[in-house]
Amino acid sequence: MESAIPEHLRCPRSQARRAPDDYVPPVPAWVARFDASVSRVAIACFGVQYRGSARAGVASAAIRRLVDACAAAEGPQHHDVAHHVDEAGYETLVLIAYWRDVPAYQRWWAESDLAIWWTSPEREREGVGYFREIFTPRAPHLETLFSSPDRFEGVGMLAASPSDQIYEHGYWGGARDRLPLAQTDGLAPGGVIGRVPTGSAGRIVLRPPQHLAVIRSGQDWSDTEGREREIYLGDVEPVLNEGMTFLRDHGRAIGCFANRYMRHVDGQGLPQRKSFGLSFWRSLAHLEIWAGSHPTHVAIFGSFMRMVKASEGQLRLRLYHEVMVLAEDEQSYEYVNCHPMTGMLRAIG
Amino acid sequence: MESAIPEHLRCPRSQARRAPDDYVPPVPAWVARFDASVSRVAIACFGVQYRGSARAGVASAAIRRLVDACAAAEGPQHHDVAHHVDEAGYETLVLIAYWRDVPAYQRWWAESDLAIWWTSPEREREGVGYFREIFTPRAPHLETLFSSPDRFEGVGMLAASPSDQIYEHGYWGGARDRLPLAQTDGLAPGGVIGRVPTGSAGRIVLRPPQHLAVIRSGQDWSDTEGREREIYLGDVEPVLNEGMTFLRDHGRAIGCFANRYMRHVDGQGLPQRKSFGLSFWRSLAHLEIWAGSHPTHVAIFGSFMRMVKASEGQLRLRLYHEVMVLAEDEQSYEYVNCHPMTGMLRAIG
Repeated sequence: MESAIPEHLRCPRSQARRAPDDYVPPVPAWVARFDASVSRVAIACFGVQYRGSARAGVASAAIRRLVDACAAAEGPQHHDVAHHVDEAGYETLVLIAYWRDVPAYQRWWAESDLAIWWTSPEREREGVGYFREIFTPRAPHLETLFSSPDRFEGVGMLAASPSDQIYEHGYWGGARDRLPLAQTDGLAPGGVIGRVPTGSAGRIVLRPPQHLAVIRSGQDWSDTEGREREIYLGDVEPVLNEGMTFLRDHGRAIGCFANRYMRHVDGQGLPQRKSFGLSFWRSLAHLEIWAGSHPTHVAIFGSFMRMVKASEGQLRLRLYHEVMVLAEDEQSYEYVNCHPMTGMLRAIG
Repeated sequence: MESAIPEHLRCPRSQARRAPDDYVPPVPAWVARFDASVSRVAIACFGVQYRGSARAGVASAAIRRLVDACAAAEGPQHHDVAHHVDEAGYETLVLIAYWRDVPAYQRWWAESDLAIWWTSPEREREGVGYFREIFTPRAPHLETLFSSPDRFEGVGMLAASPSDQIYEHGYWGGARDRLPLAQTDGLAPGGVIGRVPTGSAGRIVLRPPQHLAVIRSGQDWSDTEGREREIYLGDVEPVLNEGMTFLRDHGRAIGCFANRYMRHVDGQGLPQRKSFGLSFWRSLAHLEIWAGSHPTHVAIFGSFMRMVKASEGQLRLRLYHEVMVLAEDEQSYEYVNCHPMTGMLRAIG
C-alpha cells in the first residue's frame, strides 16, 4: 500500500490529514500515477446545447467537427462524448478532452480552424448554444480515485500506470487527504464570479473564482451481469439519480453552482453503459459537506454498500472520480447563445 | 447565531475549518459558555468495580463516601453517579465530578480524608477494584454541544449560560471546528502508553499519551412521552446500543481504547432515564473516522433522523456531548485491583 500523493509532490503538512496514521481502508482503491514530467494538464469541455430535432443535426455536426479535430497531431490523448437533458428541457452534447500538457492544447486550439470556427459570429445564429469550460490544473491541484486498477477513465487516461492500493480513502475527507495542494493550503474560496466584457452580447466570458472545485464522478456498469446489473439499475442508480437531481435543482443553496449527470454516447450517438456527474462547487469544503452529511448522498452510499454485500466482493461495477481545486488562472468559461441556467452562468444568476 | 468558539479563545486559523464560511446548520444546537476566568477545569471519574452481591455493598459504600465528600466546601460544582456492566460481567459504579478550577479539586482531594482512604492498602484487599481517571483540560482543549439550551449536563453545568445557536455543527468534523485548540494544532497523537512504577503491584499508574481524545456523549429521554419514547427505546436506543457494544468489543482496532455505555442512577442506586457513553480515543481523528464512516454510527444517525421526522420537530429527547483533546499533563490514570480490561488498562494490553 502507498500514499495517494506521489512522492515528487509530497511535502511537510501544515494542514492535518483527516485520517490517523494507522488508518486501514475497508476496501481497496487506486489512483492514477502520472509521469513526474506531467506538471500541468488541460481538460477541455466543449458543449453544444439544443432543443428539438431540427437543431439536433446542427449539434451533432458540431460535435463531429470537434471529434474529428481530436485526431490532429496536437490533439488530446483521450476524449469522451456524453449527453444529457437539463431541467429546462434542452439537450446537451459534450466533448470532454484531455491533454498531458497545456501548450499542446493551446497549439491544437490556435493552429487549427477550430478557433476561427468557434469565434465566428455564425455560431451565434444557428439556434444552438455553444460553451467552452477549460480547466488547466497544475499537478498538485488534481486527484483521482478508481475502484479497479485495470480500466481508467477521464484524466486517468493520461497516466503512466495505476498506483498500488492507496491509504487515503473510505472516509469523508479522503479527497482532501489525497490532494497534494491540501498538504499546505486550506483551499479557501475567494473572488466574485462576474462577466468579463466581450465584443458581443451573445458571448459571455466569466471571471473565475479562486479554488473552485470541479468533480467528475463516474459509473461504468458495462461489465455487470444478472443480479448485480439488476441491483445497480433498479436500486442504486435511482438513488444516485435523485442525488444528481437534488444537486441540479437545489445545489446553489449549498454551494453547488451546477451539476450535469451525463451518459456516454458512442460514435453513432447511442448511449453506452457509462455515466458521470460533472459538478462545480464553490469550494472543496462545500462538496465535502454535501457528500458527508446530506441525506441524498448518505442514501447513495447506503445503497451502494448493499450492492457490495449482494455481490459478495465480486463487484463488476466500476466507479471513479477526478477532483480539481482550481486557481483563477486554471479555469476559463465561455458561453455562446446559451440559456442563462447553463453551467457556470448559474453562478452569476 | 454565533461561532461555538468563545471570543476570548478565537485566533487566526492555521488549520482550515471543515465547514465553508456560508454553511447553515440544518437544525439548531448550542454550546456551554464558560466565564472567561475559567481557564482550566477538573473532571474526575472515580470508579468502583465489583462482581456479585457480596461486593455490591462494599461498592455502594465507597461511592456513598465519595458522594458525601462532594458536599465539602471545595467539592465539585456538579457530579453524576452512573452504572454499567462490562463484557467481563463486572459491574461498575462511577462518580464523575466537575470543578470550575483545578486548584479547588486538588485541595478537595488532598485536604480531606479521601486521599488517605484511597491510598490505603486496605483498598487492595476488599475484593473490589477502584480507579481514578482524572482530566484537567485547559479551556481550549474542551468543546461541548447541546441539542437544547435549557438543560445542560456534565461539564456544561460549570457554564455561566448557553450560547446563541452556533454555526459549526451538523456535519462530520464539527467537533474539530468547535475546539479552540484545533484552530492552530493538528491534534496529532503521540507518546506510548505504559506503566509508571508504583510502590505496589496492585496499583497501576499509566503514562498518558499526547492528544488522547475523550468523549462523553449523552442521552436524556426523561421528558419524552408516548410515540416519541416508544421510538427512542424501541428503534433508536437499540441501534445506539449496538454501536456502543461494537466500540467496546472491537474498538481497539480502530483507535478506541475503551468505551463505557453508562446509565445514570439516583441516590438509591435506581436507574434514571439518562445515559452516556464515555470513550477514550487515540486521537480526535480516530473518533472522526468512526463517527463519519462506520456503518454502526451511520445507522445511529439514520435512526435518529427517522425519530426527528416522526416527532415533527417537537423532539423532547435531549442529546449532548463533551469532547476533550488532552495534553500529557491533563490526564492521570490509576487502577487499583482492577481486571486488566478496565478503562485505559486496555491501551497497554
